[in-house]
Amino acid sequence: MPRYQAPVDEVLFLLTHVLPLKDHADLQGFGDLSPDMIEAIVREGAQVCEDFFQPVNASGDRQGCQRLPDGRVVTPEGFKAAYDAYRKGGWLGLSAPEAYGGQGLPNTLNHVMGEFTASANMALSMYGGLTQGAFAALLQHASPEQKALYIPPMIEGRWTGTMNLTEPHCGTDLGLIKTRATALGDGTYAITGQKIFISAGEHDLADNIIHLVLARLSDAPEGTRGISLFLVPKFWVNVDGSLGERNHVTCGAIEHKMGIHGNATCVMNYDQAKGVLIGEANRGLQAMFVMMNEARLGVAIQGLAQSEVAYQNAAIYAKERLQGRALTGASAPDKPADPIIVHPDIRRMLMEIRSFNEAARALILWDALQGDIAHRSQDPKSVERANDLQGLLTPVLKGVLTDLGFENCVKAQQIFGGHGYVSEWGMEQFVRDARIAMIYEGANGIQALDLVGRKLPKDGGRAIRTYLELIGRFIQERESNEALKPLLMGLKQGVGHLQEATLWFMSHAIAKPTHAGAGAYDYMHLFGLVSLGHMWVMMAEAALGLQAQGEDLQRQTTRLTLAAYFMERAMPKTGLHLKHITSGADIMMSLPADSF
Amino acid sequence: MPRYQAPVDEVLFLLTHVLPLKDHADLQGFGDLSPDMIEAIVREGAQVCEDFFQPVNASGDRQGCQRLPDGRVVTPEGFKAAYDAYRKGGWLGLSAPEAYGGQGLPNTLNHVMGEFTASANMALSMYGGLTQGAFAALLQHASPEQKALYIPPMIEGRWTGTMNLTEPHCGTDLGLIKTRATALGDGTYAITGQKIFISAGEHDLADNIIHLVLARLSDAPEGTRGISLFLVPKFWVNVDGSLGERNHVTCGAIEHKMGIHGNATCVMNYDQAKGVLIGEANRGLQAMFVMMNEARLGVAIQGLAQSEVAYQNAAIYAKERLQGRALTGASAPDKPADPIIVHPDIRRMLMEIRSFNEAARALILWDALQGDIAHRSQDPKSVERANDLQGLLTPVLKGVLTDLGFENCVKAQQIFGGHGYVSEWGMEQFVRDARIAMIYEGANGIQALDLVGRKLPKDGGRAIRTYLELIGRFIQERESNEALKPLLMGLKQGVGHLQEATLWFMSHAIAKPTHAGAGAYDYMHLFGLVSLGHMWVMMAEAALGLQAQGEDLQRQTTRLTLAAYFMERAMPKTGLHLKHITSGADIMMSLPADSF
Repeated sequence: MPRYQAPVDEVLFLLTHVLPLKDHADLQGFGDLSPDMIEAIVREGAQVCEDFFQPVNASGDRQGCQRLPDGRVVTPEGFKAAYDAYRKGGWLGLSAPEAYGGQGLPNTLNHVMGEFTASANMALSMYGGLTQGAFAALLQHASPEQKALYIPPMIEGRWTGTMNLTEPHCGTDLGLIKTRATALGDGTYAITGQKIFISAGEHDLADNIIHLVLARLSDAPEGTRGISLFLVPKFWVNVDGSLGERNHVTCGAIEHKMGIHGNATCVMNYDQAKGVLIGEANRGLQAMFVMMNEARLGVAIQGLAQSEVAYQNAAIYAKERLQGRALTGASAPDKPADPIIVHPDIRRMLMEIRSFNEAARALILWDALQGDIAHRSQDPKSVERANDLQGLLTPVLKGVLTDLGFENCVKAQQIFGGHGYVSEWGMEQFVRDARIAMIYEGANGIQALDLVGRKLPKDGGRAIRTYLELIGRFIQERESNEALKPLLMGLKQGVGHLQEATLWFMSHAIAKPTHAGAGAYDYMHLFGLVSLGHMWVMMAEAALGLQAQGEDLQRQTTRLTLAAYFMERAMPKTGLHLKHITSGADIMMSLPADSF
Repeated sequence: MPRYQAPVDEVLFLLTHVLPLKDHADLQGFGDLSPDMIEAIVREGAQVCEDFFQPVNASGDRQGCQRLPDGRVVTPEGFKAAYDAYRKGGWLGLSAPEAYGGQGLPNTLNHVMGEFTASANMALSMYGGLTQGAFAALLQHASPEQKALYIPPMIEGRWTGTMNLTEPHCGTDLGLIKTRATALGDGTYAITGQKIFISAGEHDLADNIIHLVLARLSDAPEGTRGISLFLVPKFWVNVDGSLGERNHVTCGAIEHKMGIHGNATCVMNYDQAKGVLIGEANRGLQAMFVMMNEARLGVAIQGLAQSEVAYQNAAIYAKERLQGRALTGASAPDKPADPIIVHPDIRRMLMEIRSFNEAARALILWDALQGDIAHRSQDPKSVERANDLQGLLTPVLKGVLTDLGFENCVKAQQIFGGHGYVSEWGMEQFVRDARIAMIYEGANGIQALDLVGRKLPKDGGRAIRTYLELIGRFIQERESNEALKPLLMGLKQGVGHLQEATLWFMSHAIAKPTHAGAGAYDYMHLFGLVSLGHMWVMMAEAALGLQAQGEDLQRQTTRLTLAAYFMERAMPKTGLHLKHITSGADIMMSLPADSF
């Protein structure tokens, strides 16, 4: 049976010493937060994940969701109780506005919970996660009446939400959407079409499901400029908030998937289903895109979350499993064999995973903080800067954290040998669950293209300039710090490669856009290494401070060692990425399609 | 529904132009082989895989194997018919000695079939593959009477074979084996113990199952020097070859696994089961190790096989799926969108997979040829050299081809976006099936350790010297060839890194063996890139020759482009591996175990 303990101390270290929340007391919701309150929230959140989510993770994977002949969907045993514990704890509304029943706390804390819930039970965590995404979209785009009607029950978790974008013939290219909406003359619309891959599309956890659906009005222009956003409830919602008739939206099938079996991924059929328009007509895609940063960050977190829980189990196993002897002589001569953690190759895998996990967690919180600043600061300069940084970094986090998170699950599974391949130990589930994060919310190749094709050139390159200046100043301000020097050298080299790669795109990709496309994936990963390296220097600096104060010395040594390992082993790959980028597209694109 | 077409033309190119079988006419079984015969065999083998194996691959994954309450195991629908077609075609005995009913053909051809069968249906292919492994062990170690009794029905496929090594508490460290054997005084032994992860341990495809079991005699010394090899048939075999009573060996359970669901991976219980000793007492591990090169090569082939079938399906999808427009303007303006193969990042993934697959196939046949030379040459110098090279390269192939094969399946799956995650398209099965190849027959970390700790220092480093000389001479002989120059430069740089890394181990690992352990995995992958690069130069040379003759020009261009891509994108990673190796073990090993 796999285990999970939420990394509470690690989160508190980050929120107190590395990215102190108290430095942002001017932001709405941050001011009243004492360190004790932060700790209480994080510990309580950890508890609900450990006590309710994790125990039904493996069984939920085995049972999966069942669609009954009448179209109802039954979630695995224990999911309802766990979801209820979570929603009754008020976790769905942790950072939602108090006006709608939320607690108004920093969204950064919400993302902490995102990690814990996804580590403990990724499939289950998605029901709440999608609901948060849906009410966030409504908060930004719905009318005051719509907000008042739909948002409070969603924040309470009595109703859940979904996003309906994908159709059989289109995922990335939403301009091809065929689902139609016809105005009924009474302010409502009849929606008809088929949506696929709809997570949490139908289930038995909530009284109602609020579907946000992209569809095309009859007179809409072609392509992406003719897509509108509709709200289609499973049960019609009367003006007093009571539930009315069952709407004509049904689950046609549950997809058979590689993983996240506990989440009902549905084919949703809309047959003249009644809905209302959210925001302006033909501006639906923009409405969806606005909340994309948060949603993508949520998926990035799933990459870390699976890597973290896989690491925890692999570390336990590596210390317990006896097999072979250390190269340097028996470490446990009284036992039939040494624990496998004595073997360098086991150690290598554990170090690789852990030196990623801790930096990834920091980077997520760093990015989440930019989001909080962007949404809550009163200072337009700060908002612009935070928006720039989050817009730039989010595709990097989505692509890199899910790629490396998956790779780490595979490594952690490898530590178990044959036991990693059988279901009993739970490791293969982490691999299967983690795999989807590289695909949904924009496949990672799309993240790379978003980064290079959209985020880099946007506003004349303002965001990347801001980021490079930020890192440059960060390094400069620490150059006299002898203890940080080796780490700074590693970071500096990585940043140098990032600058070179950026310049290369600027001078080559305009004449030949395929050069940008061909190097985009490497650029995203190069960027990710630099950002993770940046976090390691920040964490090492904080660890040195705590070390000087004599606090938790073994833990600080671990941090400093992981930082050194990251710079020694992970960071040098930036050079390889640069080499790939500067090879350009010529050979890659030279074959005709029919040669494949 | 996934598709598969065996790469017959590619195999014929290799066996005719790159590694011509006719150059080895002096070897037993090679002399009579005309090009027409080779082609006929390969085409016929392809046919049985395409017609019988592939159609039941996805359904076999869905159904899995069922253990009935009485312990019998039922394989998925269609497996028996497919297996029968295969065994009746004589494929199990393709390269087995004619004296026992085999066809005596090169084992290299047998490994070609290994790829085809594993691409078409990996789970099904293992029943035959394990049988071949088992009778190969008997051919080397059994007495003449035992050979006559057991081998012919196995070559015929009427009986299958298994390998019973792993126990719940030991996999890699076989010195810990607890299964006991007691002499019964009549030349037979009573075997008692539990074995786990036994592939094809029980099933309904054959009349009898011959289990090869490692166990410990009552008076055996401790550790690996006290392990003997026993043959335990499911049904006792009378001296006339007829089947006697049911033996006390039963399937206690079928493991629930991530993949290869069509293969019955069994917990096998031996309860005073009757067996016979194979070879000398206490020399069982040596007997198992002798055939390990072939078995590991078989697993390496599975890595390529899954990568190949995943590639084929991804290439088809990339040409058919319409989504988005090319960065350079619409390529299919008459259609709603362009096929996704126009996007550089899709192209990148296809190029990465294919430039691996073709080189991996060549390397497998190169390694298999060394095996044929080692077993069939009359010249002791040739035998020693081939043994050295195969011993050195096989762990490289096992580790690298299964790692990269799995990564490629993940890439191919990624090309499908969300459709890659659902079972319908079959891509996620390739990923799940491919995953086991990194683990069994010695986890890849063990391969790396075997390479660095055993194969490098063996005989004073004779094998690695032979290999480096071989590559050095290969490069030197071609240095005046202008057309090959860019490829040779890439290979030369890779070889340089391999030499440096080898020297680094020689000068650092003796004083500190953990340095070798810490760098072993990188060394294995560095070695793999050099070996694959070597194959690309050989293939490019052959392609240039055919190009000059005007033969199949588009195909030669493809080969030359893939070779260039490999040198541009894959080979430079050797520098990163070298950097990792020379960072040594200090930081990696510095934390105490309880810091994890």
